Amino acid sequence: IQTINWDPIAAEKGEYRHFMQKEIHEQVRSLTDTLAGRVDFDKGLIQLPQLKLTAETARKINKIIITACGTAQHAGLVGKIYIEKIARIPVEVDIASEFRYRDPIIQPGTVVLSISQSGETADTLAAMEEGRQKGAILWSIVNAIGSQAMRVADGYISMQVGPEIGVASTKAFTAPLVDLYMLAVLLADLRGTLPVEQRKKLVNDLRMIPDLAGKCLEHEPEVMSIARDMKDARDALYLGRGINMPIAYEGALKLKEISYIHAEGYPAGEMKHGPIALIDKDMPVIALAPNDPWYEKMASQIEQAKARGGKVIAVATEGDKNVEHLADSCLWVPSIPWMLSPVLTVIPLQMLAYHIASIRGLDVDQPRNLAKSVTVE
Amino acid sequence: IQTINWDPIAAEKGEYRHFMQKEIHEQVRSLTDTLAGRVDFDKGLIQLPQLKLTAETARKINKIIITACGTAQHAGLVGKIYIEKIARIPVEVDIASEFRYRDPIIQPGTVVLSISQSGETADTLAAMEEGRQKGAILWSIVNAIGSQAMRVADGYISMQVGPEIGVASTKAFTAPLVDLYMLAVLLADLRGTLPVEQRKKLVNDLRMIPDLAGKCLEHEPEVMSIARDMKDARDALYLGRGINMPIAYEGALKLKEISYIHAEGYPAGEMKHGPIALIDKDMPVIALAPNDPWYEKMASQIEQAKARGGKVIAVATEGDKNVEHLADSCLWVPSIPWMLSPVLTVIPLQMLAYHIASIRGLDVDQPRNLAKSVTVE
Repeated sequence: IQTINWDPIAAEKGEYRHFMQKEIHEQVRSLTDTLAGRVDFDKGLIQLPQLKLTAETARKINKIIITACGTAQHAGLVGKIYIEKIARIPVEVDIASEFRYRDPIIQPGTVVLSISQSGETADTLAAMEEGRQKGAILWSIVNAIGSQAMRVADGYISMQVGPEIGVASTKAFTAPLVDLYMLAVLLADLRGTLPVEQRKKLVNDLRMIPDLAGKCLEHEPEVMSIARDMKDARDALYLGRGINMPIAYEGALKLKEISYIHAEGYPAGEMKHGPIALIDKDMPVIALAPNDPWYEKMASQIEQAKARGGKVIAVATEGDKNVEHLADSCLWVPSIPWMLSPVLTVIPLQMLAYHIASIRGLDVDQPRNLAKSVTVE
Repeated sequence: IQTINWDPIAAEKGEYRHFMQKEIHEQVRSLTDTLAGRVDFDKGLIQLPQLKLTAETARKINKIIITACGTAQHAGLVGKIYIEKIARIPVEVDIASEFRYRDPIIQPGTVVLSISQSGETADTLAAMEEGRQKGAILWSIVNAIGSQAMRVADGYISMQVGPEIGVASTKAFTAPLVDLYMLAVLLADLRGTLPVEQRKKLVNDLRMIPDLAGKCLEHEPEVMSIARDMKDARDALYLGRGINMPIAYEGALKLKEISYIHAEGYPAGEMKHGPIALIDKDMPVIALAPNDPWYEKMASQIEQAKARGGKVIAVATEGDKNVEHLADSCLWVPSIPWMLSPVLTVIPLQMLAYHIASIRGLDVDQPRNLAKSVTVE
C-alpha cells in the first residue's frame, strides 16, 4: 500500500473539522461542475466531447462491462441500471480484481468502462489492459487529470470534482453517478432509440440535482442526532433494492471504512435468505426507501425487520408519513425523479458515517489500514 | 414467511444430532448420485436428458442468465466461471429479487437458468416468468421433484440429493456445482468447441469428487477444535478470489444463518478498498486459499491480514506448508483440479458453521426468523 502525498493544512479545511466533511458539503458545487458544459438544457442535449463517441460507434456497441473497485464499483452498479434502462445496451459490472484474472469473454462491440477517482488504481488499470488485449473499446471515468486511466482510454469522462483528500470517497461517488446517467442519455440519443420528448425530460431532470443535494445537507443536524444514537453499534445492516441497492453497499462501505463498525450492505430481497437471522435490537437496519419503483417492497421489508425486533433507520422522501410511521427514525431526502434518487440518498449516509466516526473520535480522513489510492495489488 | 411441514423424528437423524450435520455427511452419497447416470467415464461424455438440449439449440445460445436466491445464487457464481471457461458463453448471475424488477434485457438466444432447492422460491419463479415473457429459453436446476420451477422449465437438471431438512442448505449447494460443471462440458461438447482430450480430462476429473468429499469430512475433529476457538466471535470476514470467491460468500452465509454471528463474504481483492479497516484481533478472517490460479494472491492477502493484527483461518490444500506457516490455523481439503475445488472448500466451512452454532446451543435446523423455502416475497 502506498499513500499519496497530501498536506493537511488546517486552512484548506476552512470551517470543517475534516476533509471528508468538507468534501461532502462540496457536492453542491461538484455536481454543478459535473453538469457545466455538458448539458444543454435548452435543447435537451448531452455533450461529452472527451469520450469521442460517434453515432457510428454508439450503434455498434452491444455490451458494456463496467469495471472498478470499492466505491467506484458501486457507482457502476447504478450505471448498469441507467444504461440498460435508457440505452437498452446490456451492462455487466465486474470488480476489477476479479475481471483481470477471469479470462473474460470480450466480443466485437464490447466496451470496457473503468471508473477510478485516482485513475491509478492498480487492479482497474490491469482490467483496462485486459480489455485492450482482447480488442475492447476502452473508456474511463476519472478524476485525476492526466492519470493513467485517462491516458490509455479511447475516450473518457473527467469527474469535475477537484482534489479529494478524505480516504472515504464522497464527491467522487456522486459525480460518476451523474456522468453515467449522462452517458446513458448520450448513447441512446446517438443510437436513435430515445424519443425527443423523453430525452428532454431526462436531461431536464438533471437541472435540480445541485439544489436538491444542498437540501440533503440541510438535514445534517438530524443526521447528527441519529449518529449519536448509533455511535456504540458494533454492527449494522444496510438494505436496498433496485436502483438504491448499490447505495446500501455504499452506505455500509462508508461506515466500515471510517468508523470500524461492521456494516454490511445487502439486496433487501435477499434478507429472508439469511441476514434476517441476524436482526435483533443490537443490529441497526438502515433501509433505503425513497420514492422509486421498489418503494412498496422496501416498506414491507421495513415492517419485517421491525417484526423481528430490529431498529430501523429509513432513508425516505420528505413528507413520507408511511415510512415515518414504520421506521424508528428517518434520514430525509427531497423528492426527485427515481432514476436520480441515488445521487441524493447516499448523502445522508455519507454524513451518518462521518458523524459516527467523528463522535467516536477516529481519524476520519486517514482511517487505519487504508490508503486513498490503491496503486499496488 | 411460510414454513414447510417436516417431521423431526429423531430416528431419521440416525447418529447425528441435527439434520444439518447429517446432510453435510450425506454429501459423499449425494455427489455420487449427482454423477450417476449422467457421466460416462469410459467415453468421457455427459448426459443430461431432462435438459432436452440439442446441438442446434446449444449452438444458438449466446448468453446465459443464472438467477437464484441465497445459497443457490452462490452456486450460480461458480457456474458462471464453469460455463465461461469451458463453453465460452457469456454468463450473467443475478439475484432473482433484483432480476424480476429490473426490466432485464433478453435477446434471442438467451437462456434464463434458475437454481432452487425447493423449486418453489417465489422470487425465482417470478424471474422465470419474466424470462418466459421476454422469450428466453428456460432451464432450472431443482431438487424437489414436480415443483413449479421444474414444471415450467423447457428443460431441467434435477439435484439428486434427496430431501434436505436443515434450513441452512448444504448438500443442495454442492450438487448444483457439479450440475453446472456438467452443463458447461455438455454445452461446449454440443457446440463443437471442446477438444476430445480436454473433454475426457474434464469428465474424468469428476470421478474423484465423492471420495474427496469424504476425505474433507474426516477432518471434522480439527474443524471442531477451530469452532471452539471461534465460538465467541461476534463478527467474521470470509475472503476468496476467483472460483473460490463465491465460497467466501457461502461460508459467511452459513455462519450467519445458524450462529447469528455477523459473518460477511468479500472478494479478497476488494479488501484494501474498505474491509481491511475492520481487521483486528476480534475479527477472525477466513481465507480460501486452495491450489487454484488465485493461490499466490490469496497467500499475499493472508500476509496482509496478519500484518494488521488479524487472526487468519485458511482453507488450504493438505500438505501446504506455506499457508500453514502464514495462517493461525488451517481447514484442510485434499488436492483436486482447481475448477472442482469449490465442491471441497465449502465442506469445512459448512462443518465450521454447524459446530459453532451447535457449541453455542442454537437450534441449528430451525434458526430464528428463517424458513426452509421462501415461497412468498
